[in-house]
Amino acid sequence: MHNVLLTGFEAFDQDTLNPSWETVRRLDGTLLSDDVRIVARQLPCAFEQAPERLRQCLADVQPILVIAVGLAQGRSDLSIERVAINLNDARIPDNLGHQPIDTPVVPGGPAAYFCSLPIKAMVRALRAAGIPASVSHSAGTFVCNQVFYSLQHALAGSAVRSGFIHVPWLPQQAAQAGSALPSMALETLVEGLRIAVLTALNTEHDVLETGGQVS
Amino acid sequence: MHNVLLTGFEAFDQDTLNPSWETVRRLDGTLLSDDVRIVARQLPCAFEQAPERLRQCLADVQPILVIAVGLAQGRSDLSIERVAINLNDARIPDNLGHQPIDTPVVPGGPAAYFCSLPIKAMVRALRAAGIPASVSHSAGTFVCNQVFYSLQHALAGSAVRSGFIHVPWLPQQAAQAGSALPSMALETLVEGLRIAVLTALNTEHDVLETGGQVS
Amino acid sequence: MHNVLLTGFEAFDQDTLNPSWETVRRLDGTLLSDDVRIVARQLPCAFEQAPERLRQCLADVQPILVIAVGLAQGRSDLSIERVAINLNDARIPDNLGHQPIDTPVVPGGPAAYFCSLPIKAMVRALRAAGIPASVSHSAGTFVCNQVFYSLQHALAGSAVRSGFIHVPWLPQQAAQAGSALPSMALETLVEGLRIAVLTALNTEHDVLETGGQVS
Amino acid sequence: MHNVLLTGFEAFDQDTLNPSWETVRRLDGTLLSDDVRIVARQLPCAFEQAPERLRQCLADVQPILVIAVGLAQGRSDLSIERVAINLNDARIPDNLGHQPIDTPVVPGGPAAYFCSLPIKAMVRALRAAGIPASVSHSAGTFVCNQVFYSLQHALAGSAVRSGFIHVPWLPQQAAQAGSALPSMALETLVEGLRIAVLTALNTEHDVLETGGQVS
Repeated sequence: MHNVLLTGFEAFDQDTLNPSWETVRRLDGTLLSDDVRIVARQLPCAFEQAPERLRQCLADVQPILVIAVGLAQGRSDLSIERVAINLNDARIPDNLGHQPIDTPVVPGGPAAYFCSLPIKAMVRALRAAGIPASVSHSAGTFVCNQVFYSLQHALAGSAVRSGFIHVPWLPQQAAQAGSALPSMALETLVEGLRIAVLTALNTEHDVLETGGQVS
Repeated sequence: MHNVLLTGFEAFDQDTLNPSWETVRRLDGTLLSDDVRIVARQLPCAFEQAPERLRQCLADVQPILVIAVGLAQGRSDLSIERVAINLNDARIPDNLGHQPIDTPVVPGGPAAYFCSLPIKAMVRALRAAGIPASVSHSAGTFVCNQVFYSLQHALAGSAVRSGFIHVPWLPQQAAQAGSALPSMALETLVEGLRIAVLTALNTEHDVLETGGQVS
Repeated sequence: MHNVLLTGFEAFDQDTLNPSWETVRRLDGTLLSDDVRIVARQLPCAFEQAPERLRQCLADVQPILVIAVGLAQGRSDLSIERVAINLNDARIPDNLGHQPIDTPVVPGGPAAYFCSLPIKAMVRALRAAGIPASVSHSAGTFVCNQVFYSLQHALAGSAVRSGFIHVPWLPQQAAQAGSALPSMALETLVEGLRIAVLTALNTEHDVLETGGQVS
Repeated sequence: MHNVLLTGFEAFDQDTLNPSWETVRRLDGTLLSDDVRIVARQLPCAFEQAPERLRQCLADVQPILVIAVGLAQGRSDLSIERVAINLNDARIPDNLGHQPIDTPVVPGGPAAYFCSLPIKAMVRALRAAGIPASVSHSAGTFVCNQVFYSLQHALAGSAVRSGFIHVPWLPQQAAQAGSALPSMALETLVEGLRIAVLTALNTEHDVLETGGQVS
């Protein structure tokens, strides 16, 4: 049996749940074929703990593909992140009260890693299935980017492809906040992540179509 | 048997479907109690036809409550409209190619009508159910506002309460457009509209809590 | 000598100044022709005081044209308001700590008044001068709308035309907040308001071009 | 005499001017001290030409500091870019009709370069002067990012510090488009860029305060 590792985060800031974990835990154990299944694991939203916990997950699960998932308040679609940068710059404290400013994720590491997933094919497949998706060129500078960078660093040079997807708030989070921020239904998130994983597994060479931003 | 009338629009502009009609048609025939049911009707997205078609629906259905529903591209929640204004000012042509500019909905009619639904109670009930909702103070100046004004004008002075709700794009519309505009799942829209109707039926006096905007 | 009355508000909420007052006070005393000059007056940002103070200004100045100006945080252009509604619904307390919810501006007054300025000609003239401007269909439900409604109510039936313009933050306000909200330079605001006044004075019949919103 | 090189772009897409060039050309020749002056140069908005033209500028001017400036439609402040990535992914064709998709800026180059300017001190100084500014973590994937990456690549390992600043539309561009996109007055842009240059020249060690984004 081959494993696809999906990670999601525990709740952070004002929230009582995190759509990234709610999504991936519903896919835990899903069989994608006779010999490929999804394994979901939760990561802490804490700079000091998340990278080490990620490395444990990688060692335990021995995945053939990894997608880390996180929440991006205010975004309206599945954002497939293209680049992880070697920088922590926390606007707010993490769940342990730490707020690193202008520190590297990995001292001495390269400035950035690109996602190794076929991101254009994934966006195309998601949109074809009626699920809003796009390429993003910044995963921020908080624990999401830290985990994304740590993941790409850990797997650099290996044959295991990996990346990061940001997801919107759940409807109940937008409802509770009483704000006008966008949200996405859990069912859409789960189906979207399933499609993203399948597309990543089944696409050897990415398609060539723009996902760019002028600025 | 008492009827609640819900109206939705046909598709317009670039779209091939309209979430307002997709939502209300799924509620058509729903029994809300032993003697109250929902009747859904479609309205054309055309200034010349929509008000007359609305009047026919009112005459046919003899409703005890009416909620007209329309699409608001770019909004992220169920927007309960508070005020309908006596003004057509079309930024784009309607489905018949007409584009009235600065004409009244009803010549000689009052400048505006307020919604007669318990809108604060509806927003509260929707949020409590985990469905993003808010009060809006402009229904625009296109066919949506024309229908809303026509509805309030037709029922002015009657005991039948009525109003208008704007809904976001469906996910497949945002996916097809490839844009970053927000969307809402059809299941959420249907459940939200059901809750809105029930709350309107069961709330005699609206709650007093702010839904205001500073500007 | 004929007077054009411009009003601006004192600072409110977290701000230490208000761009509406900063703008109009710089136009105070400006001669627009041999016998027309601008008179600027400040209004309190308080529901209990603003309408009465406005009426005093009207009585004192005996204007031939009135434009009230207020701040709209988050807007990026000169928003010429089209409609004032008979509703106070304060999301936050005013400068006296009052927060009216769902009360009328004028008990028994009409639901709304339309602006009596040539708003399309004003937008056209501003854009031609390189100053961002648009028509808005909601002035909110706070003191700005209250003043706008009170103004239209006071002058209803008279030959004196009047309206309301919302302006963005000043750059220093956006800078201080550290947010990504738009702003406009004071020089642009002052020149824009001068053009708006001149266009209103010199345009008998408004131009027919859309300023509408689909929703 | 020491030179500070500022570059701006020619107009592109639908625009007839480019605020980046309008800004820097007004600073051309400005003396910052007895022996430091600003030299402004224009770059083409074309993937095939911009890097080579930049290298010529560097060779000609022999600068002690370089800030490249570009337009970011839709942004509202001076965005000091933190990271340049080794990726071209053009959403629209450049001025020569070329639209590279998923090509490297420099084949074999590192995935990214960080800005070598004291960006936090620059944001602080700009805000203190009343000019909206922030740190950005994506310069896009068009010619702006290409120039930024090329600049950091050319100066990597040297003592010459360099970076990229994105600026908003000018007011007349927003006015002409009739859109609600934010803009900034040319005077504010010029003063802002002057402050940014002075701060970069005079700050040896950057301040430690967050400019981060959660996502």
